[in-house]
Parts: sequence; C-alpha cells; structure tokens
Amino acid sequence: MKKGLFITFEGVDGCGKTTQLTKTKEFLESKGYDVVVTREPGAGEIGNKIREMLLHYNGNISDKCEMFLFLADRAQHIENLIKPSVDKGKVVLCDRHTDSTLAYQGFARGQDIELLNKLNKIAVNGIIPDLTLLYDLDTDIAQERVGLNKDRMESVNIEFHKKVRNGYLSLQKKYPERIKLINANNSIEKVFEQTKDIVLQLIQEKRGI
Amino acid sequence: MKKGLFITFEGVDGCGKTTQLTKTKEFLESKGYDVVVTREPGAGEIGNKIREMLLHYNGNISDKCEMFLFLADRAQHIENLIKPSVDKGKVVLCDRHTDSTLAYQGFARGQDIELLNKLNKIAVNGIIPDLTLLYDLDTDIAQERVGLNKDRMESVNIEFHKKVRNGYLSLQKKYPERIKLINANNSIEKVFEQTKDIVLQLIQEKRGI
Repeated sequence: MKKGLFITFEGVDGCGKTTQLTKTKEFLESKGYDVVVTREPGAGEIGNKIREMLLHYNGNISDKCEMFLFLADRAQHIENLIKPSVDKGKVVLCDRHTDSTLAYQGFARGQDIELLNKLNKIAVNGIIPDLTLLYDLDTDIAQERVGLNKDRMESVNIEFHKKVRNGYLSLQKKYPERIKLINANNSIEKVFEQTKDIVLQLIQEKRGI
Repeated sequence: MKKGLFITFEGVDGCGKTTQLTKTKEFLESKGYDVVVTREPGAGEIGNKIREMLLHYNGNISDKCEMFLFLADRAQHIENLIKPSVDKGKVVLCDRHTDSTLAYQGFARGQDIELLNKLNKIAVNGIIPDLTLLYDLDTDIAQERVGLNKDRMESVNIEFHKKVRNGYLSLQKKYPERIKLINANNSIEKVFEQTKDIVLQLIQEKRGI
C-alpha cells in the first residue's frame, strides 16, 4: 500500500485556502487518489460541537479556555480521523491545523509559543503534516474578501490580522521544508497552479510517482 | 476586607461530597459568610456546554480530547468565577477541581501524572485551593449509592472506581497539608461534623476568627 499523506492548508481568513483545498481535492481525485477533506476546528460530531462554541458563541471565552478547546478538537481529530486515514494510505487535506494555533493564539493573542508547541505536540501524538501550504495575502485584501460575513474569530481588528499574518510568515521561515509559501494575491487559477506543482512534487518525493 | 477562601470537595461518585458542600454552604451563610457554590465541569454558560459534552455525549471521546475539555472548562472557571470571587473576599466551594483530573484522567485512565500537573498549572493560573476535602468511601458502597442513575463518567467498571479512589488517597498522602481525609462511610451528620471542624479551623487560620 502507498504511504498516506497529511497536507494542511493555512493562512489568514479570506486568503482562499478553502477554495484551493477543494480544487486540490478534485484534482487528486481525478488522478485516482483516495482523498479525505477535513478541517479544524470541527471534525466529527464532538468536533462540530467544539467548533460551534469557538466560532459562534457570543459570550466571553477566556484565551486559555479557547486554547484548550482547540486542543481538545485537535486531539479527537488526530485520533479518530487523521491518523486512521493516513494509516490507510489516504491523502488527508486539512483546513487549518497546528500552525493556526501558533499564529492566532500564539503570535496574535500573545500566548507563550513554546507552551503552545508543547501542547500541540501532546494533541497530535506524533502526527506532523507532510506539507503545509501557506496562502499569504495582504491584510487589506483579506479584510475586503471576508467582508461582513464574519464569525467570532474573524470579528477582531485589523492589527490582530496583521499579527496573525506575521506569525505565519515567521513559522514559514522556521520550517521552510514543511511550510511552502504561496502568494495568494494572485488569481485563483494562478494560485492553484502553484498549489498543484507543490502537491505533485510532494507526492513524487513521498510516493515515488 | 477579609481574605477570600477557595475550598474544593473531592471524592468518588456517590461519596456524598455534594451533600456536604450544600450543608457547608448553609452553615457558612448562617454565620454571615458570602459563599459562592460552583462545580467542575460546568461553571457558567460555556462551562455548561462543556459539561454537557463530557457527561452526556454518547459517542466516542478520546482520552486526550476529554482531558483538554476539562482543562478548557477549568481555565474559564478560574478566570471568570473563582479568581474574581476569591479576590472579592468570598468563600468559594467547588465540587471537583484539579484533583479530579489527577484521580480520574491520571491514576484511573493512565494519562501521565506529571503532564497533567503541568496542564493543571497552566489552567489554574496560580489559584490553588486553600483546602481540599476528600470524602473517602469503600468502592462497593459508592457503587450502591450511585445506583442506576449514572452518567457517562460513572458508567465504567468497578476496577476503574477503585483506581480513582486509590489515586485520591495517593494525592492526600502527597499533599497532607492541603487535602484533608474524611471517612465518608459514616452518617451524613457525622461526616458533616468533621467537615465543619476542618472548615472552621481553616477559617480561623486564614482569617483569624
């Protein structure tokens, strides 16, 4: 059996990662790959309950409570979906994962990065993405794209989004082998060409085709 | 203003800690204290959503997911209720807290105790109980008392409950200054006499009355 792959899609809200993920899924399926599409927070029934709380709860959620809720979702997600799928040789495409925690809770909200790294490590139980696609977008354009359709996580000021973006860029510099930077200011088609090239290269390296 | 106090009530299901907590509340209020009664999991709106998931969700919740959910609830609880109440000079009586995590997730479910200690430390942000009352009960009697009215956490076998009980006893040996052992096999009245004596002694020591 071919080795499974775990690919994460990251970036600020409005960067187009979900569109790119869908196009990647369609492309890989057309090539005969067994693809699993998922997202964080919110995989599975318990994950959806956590997602509901994180994105749509209007009351106050403390930063630490939020951090632990994301980790609860991640632990469940890894154990119940991601690891079993990769073990079966599938290609898992995940919309947001550990780097979101670091960018949002760490770089933007100011939680200790080393602590978040340790907690992420506990939650993922050894499962690290084979590849992370980081869709980088000018903050102004991201804000325009998100428009008025904002959930709790998106309803924060532009300074926050800038911190998230810079956090992602720092992570990319720290893990250049795993995290590939894609300029998301370009057209959907152009961005997808780049996405496809990077994904195909990974498949060639990891699965030898 | 008098110093606030934080007292936790611990023990296996069926040990009578909730009854004792209620009697303690009534007693302290009759003496003029400003008492806050709370519980874990499940303080506040977000805590209740987490509690609902932890106690009544019928699907599979991974051990790590469960652990992080308890921590999310605790972080929110400490920040939004326990710390502000203690800061205002109130007496906070809490049904289950950090020792439950150690006894249930650690000693009984086998999660790493040192790791749980570290995570608890992150969640509580420096707020440690002034006193923990541990109601120790023979496992057979506890099972009889709980009867058929079991939630998800209680619906496990007797071996599990024995591990929880032994976990609590180990914690009491480790922190004898903070955790006071009470024999919960005795009558409610006798158990309450002991509870009252210990609580009054604490108040005398901490508030000098």
